[in-house]
Amino acid sequence: MTEKELENLFNAEPVNPAMLKSILLDMNTADIAELFEDLKIEKVIRVFRLLPKYTASEVFSNLEADKQQILVEALTDTEVGEIINNLFADDAVDFIEEMPANAVKRVLRNVSPEKRKVINQLLQYPEDSAGSIMTTEYIDLPEKATVKEAFDLIRATGLNKETIYTCYVIRPDRQLIGIVSAKTLMLSALTDKIGDIMDSNPLFVFTADDQEMVAGLFKKYGFLAMPVVDRERQLVGIITVDDIVEIIEEENTEDFEKMSALNPSDEPYLKTSIFALTRNRILWLLVLMLSATVTGGIISSFQDALSVLPILVAFIPMLMDTGGNAGSQASTLIIRGMALGEIELKDIVKVLWKEIRVGIFCGLGLGAVNFLRVYFMNGRNAALAFMVSLSLSATVLMAKSFGCVLPMIAKKLRLDPAIMAAPIITTIIDGASLAVYFSVAKVMLGI
Amino acid sequence: MTEKELENLFNAEPVNPAMLKSILLDMNTADIAELFEDLKIEKVIRVFRLLPKYTASEVFSNLEADKQQILVEALTDTEVGEIINNLFADDAVDFIEEMPANAVKRVLRNVSPEKRKVINQLLQYPEDSAGSIMTTEYIDLPEKATVKEAFDLIRATGLNKETIYTCYVIRPDRQLIGIVSAKTLMLSALTDKIGDIMDSNPLFVFTADDQEMVAGLFKKYGFLAMPVVDRERQLVGIITVDDIVEIIEEENTEDFEKMSALNPSDEPYLKTSIFALTRNRILWLLVLMLSATVTGGIISSFQDALSVLPILVAFIPMLMDTGGNAGSQASTLIIRGMALGEIELKDIVKVLWKEIRVGIFCGLGLGAVNFLRVYFMNGRNAALAFMVSLSLSATVLMAKSFGCVLPMIAKKLRLDPAIMAAPIITTIIDGASLAVYFSVAKVMLGI
Repeated sequence: MTEKELENLFNAEPVNPAMLKSILLDMNTADIAELFEDLKIEKVIRVFRLLPKYTASEVFSNLEADKQQILVEALTDTEVGEIINNLFADDAVDFIEEMPANAVKRVLRNVSPEKRKVINQLLQYPEDSAGSIMTTEYIDLPEKATVKEAFDLIRATGLNKETIYTCYVIRPDRQLIGIVSAKTLMLSALTDKIGDIMDSNPLFVFTADDQEMVAGLFKKYGFLAMPVVDRERQLVGIITVDDIVEIIEEENTEDFEKMSALNPSDEPYLKTSIFALTRNRILWLLVLMLSATVTGGIISSFQDALSVLPILVAFIPMLMDTGGNAGSQASTLIIRGMALGEIELKDIVKVLWKEIRVGIFCGLGLGAVNFLRVYFMNGRNAALAFMVSLSLSATVLMAKSFGCVLPMIAKKLRLDPAIMAAPIITTIIDGASLAVYFSVAKVMLGI
Repeated sequence: MTEKELENLFNAEPVNPAMLKSILLDMNTADIAELFEDLKIEKVIRVFRLLPKYTASEVFSNLEADKQQILVEALTDTEVGEIINNLFADDAVDFIEEMPANAVKRVLRNVSPEKRKVINQLLQYPEDSAGSIMTTEYIDLPEKATVKEAFDLIRATGLNKETIYTCYVIRPDRQLIGIVSAKTLMLSALTDKIGDIMDSNPLFVFTADDQEMVAGLFKKYGFLAMPVVDRERQLVGIITVDDIVEIIEEENTEDFEKMSALNPSDEPYLKTSIFALTRNRILWLLVLMLSATVTGGIISSFQDALSVLPILVAFIPMLMDTGGNAGSQASTLIIRGMALGEIELKDIVKVLWKEIRVGIFCGLGLGAVNFLRVYFMNGRNAALAFMVSLSLSATVLMAKSFGCVLPMIAKKLRLDPAIMAAPIITTIIDGASLAVYFSVAKVMLGI
């Protein structure tokens, strides 16, 4: 069935419930959610009510926040309670965090007391911490259980767990003492004791650990899930790889935004208001605009050189742009390398030495081409061509050096290296390159 | 044990093999590989030989390409054959793709004929295709098997499979007809037939599909693995989520690099040669440098305005930088939104209208601040302040409009939107903004 036919079926009036339901049950919940995005809310509600409750909750967790909110407003208290009760705790928390306060009250009033307790607990972890992204539906086993007992437990409770592929072995006081994968369980004898086959040295994270660090562990070890413990090392939740994939993309988006002088925002572009978009941009634009005043001041202070040789002005854009580009090339590589853990602070001398050499080669290459261009396009004025090219080479070298060092200094100062990207580097290099340019000019002009 | 103590143990002379081995077996293979990175090759080989063969292969697949190469050169033919035979096919291919031709020959000579066949086959898929990242170690089941038979098969062969958590149901001609998760198996009765419990409508990709598209499916559906089929829909491999995580980071790195006018490179920064680093940068720098000549030409053509009012030059950096920043803010949001699938080509009018309004607000805000600054810092010259601020507001509006539209046009033309980022947008906006600036000046000066 094509997407079009499906949509027709959704839009049919009157709806054929039996046929629609059988089609829905064959679909992936992410696809149902996608179809809902473009459907009128009355249709969404009618179709939503056809779904079995687990499927309904899964579809709900795949909807965008604004659609979730509209849907919840249109459903009865009982229906809302049922949906949230059947959501995994992390998805329930994701949803609630986006809600206005009065809607949150209504939701929490209608969920089961146990779920309410879990949700309230998860809501208390700081944003971007392991605690804030974990969920509480995991399988825990006592170390004395046998493999057979483990299978029985999985069979009895596994349907409602976020993953059954890693089971967590805990002591009666909930201290995490090991993990055992479903693979190990399947490859072991039914009479084996969990305590004998478990990995008794499992990696775990604390609730307060940063999500970016947690994502790094998943990347390094290729985990499907990781346990989260509190300060007493008691197991309180798990994080699964599907959430980590989302976090990796979030962190990357944040870096892209910071590197373009934007205040990071979680909302998708098309759903962000004009006001929010403006607010996320204007502060940095203002700061950088006022900083560029310094560069303007440098030019003004060299008015004498400019009045002797007005053609000097024509090379300002080329110098500024090339300096900015050369610097942002270097800073991007360093920022990205640090984000991926490929470059560490201790490498700073190695990095600087690399960039100095690359800067010399790039500077000489660009300088040579530029010399020829200026020479032949400006009445074979070798002095002018040399002056501009020398400034250009020096600019590239400075840009590469600043571009690699500034992000590392930012990291050393515990700032986010991503803020030391193109916009700031460009502003700094602009001033430096024009100062060099006019100084060279003055010396050569003998002013 | 701290990292320091461990390293001491590795470096100890003479090595205590029994103790070292027992420690190694308690460690994650990714951690062993990390320790190897900083160790002298003689030490690496000695320690490597202590490892059981499966562990050795896993450690090997976690090493960086250059270390793998050094290690292979130092090991005997038999050892090399054994390592590669025990690698998953995708890891073997990753390794071989980085090797010089003569080393590849030696490796292929020493692996088993079956492995050689699989490797040669995988090597033929185009770079960045699903075929090039898949592996061939999966569990396939006939639809007539019972759950008990499936468990028996997993128990017999599961140890060497990349994942046992999704099993693939195929017909005798290898056509993919369904998938069944280990979860479903565990929750079903042992006498159930696979054909009755499988998901008979599984999502799959073709060997030629692009890896970025495949990664998108993993993100959307939260899969742990996906089947890959050939044109006849016969199952030929699987892709697992741990490889997808790597691909997501690779694709992001590529976008970061393109957006900073760098030729994308797979190699980690610190392992890239000065020559390669220079080569990846200089072409774009040259192109952009020569493009900036146009902007210089625009300035030259307004020499008359400059000679009447030399102070005009002082505002060039501020105009250029603000235009560049405003444009790259817009282009980054659009490029990222398209990469994440949040913005589609059909949204172009919506996007442009959003950016025009944001551009007006940002432009007015910056213009107002700039007016005050220029007015009070330049002898209360209201005409000058107005002229500069008007040009600034127009620049911001143009930058936002170009910044959002150009990446979408690139996508429409089937180019990578990421190339329409800060460097190119800045170059274009520079010319446009200076043209506006000097035209406004000429009108107001009455030249």
